[in-house]
Amino acid sequence: MTADRQPVLGILGGGQLARMLALAAAPLGVKTLVVDGVADACAGQVAPLLVADWTDYAALEAFASKVDVVTFDFENVPAETAHWLAERVAVFPAPQALAVAQDRLAEKTMFRDCGLQTAAFMAVDTREMLDQALATIGTPAILKTRRLGYDGKGQFRLHSIADADAAWASLGAAAARHGLILEAFVPFQRELSVIAVRGRNGDFNTWPLTRNWHTDGVLSMSLAPAPDIDQLQGRATELARTLAERLGYVGVFALELFVKDGELLGNEMAPRVHNSGHWTIEGAHTSQFENHVRAVLGMPLGNGEARGVSAMFNWIGDLPDPAPVLRTVDAHWHDYGKQARPGRKVGHATLCAPTSAALADRLADVATTLDRLPQAQPALDALTR
Amino acid sequence: MTADRQPVLGILGGGQLARMLALAAAPLGVKTLVVDGVADACAGQVAPLLVADWTDYAALEAFASKVDVVTFDFENVPAETAHWLAERVAVFPAPQALAVAQDRLAEKTMFRDCGLQTAAFMAVDTREMLDQALATIGTPAILKTRRLGYDGKGQFRLHSIADADAAWASLGAAAARHGLILEAFVPFQRELSVIAVRGRNGDFNTWPLTRNWHTDGVLSMSLAPAPDIDQLQGRATELARTLAERLGYVGVFALELFVKDGELLGNEMAPRVHNSGHWTIEGAHTSQFENHVRAVLGMPLGNGEARGVSAMFNWIGDLPDPAPVLRTVDAHWHDYGKQARPGRKVGHATLCAPTSAALADRLADVATTLDRLPQAQPALDALTR
Ligand SMILES: Nc1ncnc2c1ncn2[C@@H]1O[C@H](COP(=O)(O)OP(=O)(O)OP(=O)(O)O)[C@@H](O)[C@H]1O
Ligand SMILES: Nc1ncnc2c1ncn2[C@@H]1O[C@H](COP(=O)(O)OP(=O)(O)OP(=O)(O)O)[C@@H](O)[C@H]1O
Repeated sequence: MTADRQPVLGILGGGQLARMLALAAAPLGVKTLVVDGVADACAGQVAPLLVADWTDYAALEAFASKVDVVTFDFENVPAETAHWLAERVAVFPAPQALAVAQDRLAEKTMFRDCGLQTAAFMAVDTREMLDQALATIGTPAILKTRRLGYDGKGQFRLHSIADADAAWASLGAAAARHGLILEAFVPFQRELSVIAVRGRNGDFNTWPLTRNWHTDGVLSMSLAPAPDIDQLQGRATELARTLAERLGYVGVFALELFVKDGELLGNEMAPRVHNSGHWTIEGAHTSQFENHVRAVLGMPLGNGEARGVSAMFNWIGDLPDPAPVLRTVDAHWHDYGKQARPGRKVGHATLCAPTSAALADRLADVATTLDRLPQAQPALDALTR
Repeated sequence: MTADRQPVLGILGGGQLARMLALAAAPLGVKTLVVDGVADACAGQVAPLLVADWTDYAALEAFASKVDVVTFDFENVPAETAHWLAERVAVFPAPQALAVAQDRLAEKTMFRDCGLQTAAFMAVDTREMLDQALATIGTPAILKTRRLGYDGKGQFRLHSIADADAAWASLGAAAARHGLILEAFVPFQRELSVIAVRGRNGDFNTWPLTRNWHTDGVLSMSLAPAPDIDQLQGRATELARTLAERLGYVGVFALELFVKDGELLGNEMAPRVHNSGHWTIEGAHTSQFENHVRAVLGMPLGNGEARGVSAMFNWIGDLPDPAPVLRTVDAHWHDYGKQARPGRKVGHATLCAPTSAALADRLADVATTLDRLPQAQPALDALTR
């Protein structure tokens, strides 16, 4: 516990999520201290950075003594590290909640316990179990590592049983370490996410459902509020609340959903602020980052209503020219301060407008100028049909 | 010039303006480096801080070598420091422009040259000149230091000629060092400010006129867009543009205006982001902080249109309980991370709403809960009459 009037929020992981959390914390009078293994972690540009590994307990001891609350930018912080810290300082979300969200098997089991359907799934630890699972679930299917997957990494898509050898060649080694899960491929019509927040006192709030499009397993575009969600928002909110209460969850999380024939299926729960909620910085009355800080520090939660309609471009690998975005009314540039690298999330841009028609115009203009029409096209179609 | 892909903005002064500039710079991919004489300057919580005096040229040399562009949080940086830096690195606004705005006499003379009327004024360097000025200008009048005044400091109000002794006792010593100016007291109906920005390529933009209320010479409340400005906005914008072009100004500035019998009179020009523009963070499509960063770095300027109506409470001396603001829809808390001290600007809160009526409701609610009705009352009257 620090003596200062200003509380200090410790963040495990120093990527763009920590960076945006720190930027949201400052106006609330909350200081931040970030831990990351690398000295050029991009959150270090806007907050003090402690360079340490997750197993450097001397450094973590110093960290714990300087902060009032610990949270995560990175959901795959080792469970031991989270538990060790939780014995010394308040950690939100709690390590137990994190553990469920870190394991696709535990997570999908919990979804079903809470009344949220999922694709058929089975645990796979050996090659024999893969064959059995394929016999039960059929193809197409996706083999995934149970733990440590993100942005579609650690996944293999099987189009037919003949792909089993290739799948095992790719992920068999990970089976022993992390376990695997085979999931039926869901021929979904839409992907949605609901960002939700739960406070230390149990207060609960959501933002409007967001529609998401992925390319190669990585989010490429979001649209919020998602069109045509009247039949779905209430149920998504209730599911998110049920999950949060079951886990005693504190902070922001994302629940990723598939829509198939009008039904919601649970894909995964991200126990942190989420890429599909970046639009809330300018597109909602309170951003996911601000509400996460408020929640973990026990401050009142803010309202998540959308102001108008927003579309978010994710910038993967490298940043395009910012000028077309900077010149557009109510368009907002987010450079994470990272070096370009293939597949890396280096920034995003959010375009806001009062109506879907106005947003479609701005989106088409920006996408055309940037030569990014393919990235924007699905959102344009959703806005204009 | 730095080698990195990300430009570095150097800021002279590390108060709340530097803090909010740094927070706006980060999403643009711009790094900041702040210089201040004190180690706990509040901008140091969100950006690297170099602790040095304005005359520590060894430190300033190191600073200049690390930044691409220099700007100001503090308009009273000594002219020599600004000139010295401008020989080594790009400085915006240019020291020449800063010099005019630092001197009330040069500033008001320029206003008149640009067709902007002012109160009657005369330079006062000696006691005899004070008597002559009082004979010409009459009372009520205000004696002010020509330089280094801010937040109503360095001012003395004369109700009658009999106050001349007291005024000289208070400010006579400053006459030799900085010079004084006697101004006729303006029986204004309203105080307005126009925040404007000019880019390195001459592009120019303004935000809607803001109405301001002061208590003891310090801004206490702002309302934007100011009600009833149809007859004034065009002229205010043109005056701001004329001044900016005359000075070759680059960056954001505020032009403070009195409205008397429907006419605009110039009070002063603040050569920096300004307290009466803090509402632009949430209340306009682009904030004054973001546009200042864009302008001095040569990026395209953003649109300054208001989204809805905004009211800003200034927190002077200490912060009230944040909870009532945090609980209000589209209300935004800004704690500058400073220690409480009488008269010190320690934070602000901006309330936004789609209509004046909705804003009046939110403002009345928050002011009542905080027991701050007197502070909000003038804005409430302006909103509801
Ligand atoms: N069972 C499935 N059926 C159909 N598509 C799927 C399935 N599982 C994953 N996908 C597709 O792959 C994307 C990424 O999968 P998933 O969310 O499991 O990966 P992740 O690595 O955890 O990603 P993230 O970091 O984005 O959450 C999904 O958003 C979806 O488009
Ligand atoms: N000539 C005048 N007639 C009437 N009121 C005045 C006059 N000059 C100043 N005031 C009042 O005092 C306030 C502060 O004055 P001024 O702007 O000169 O001070 P400052 O110290 O430079 O303040 P700031 O830092 O807020 O710009 C004005 O906003 C106005 O309310």
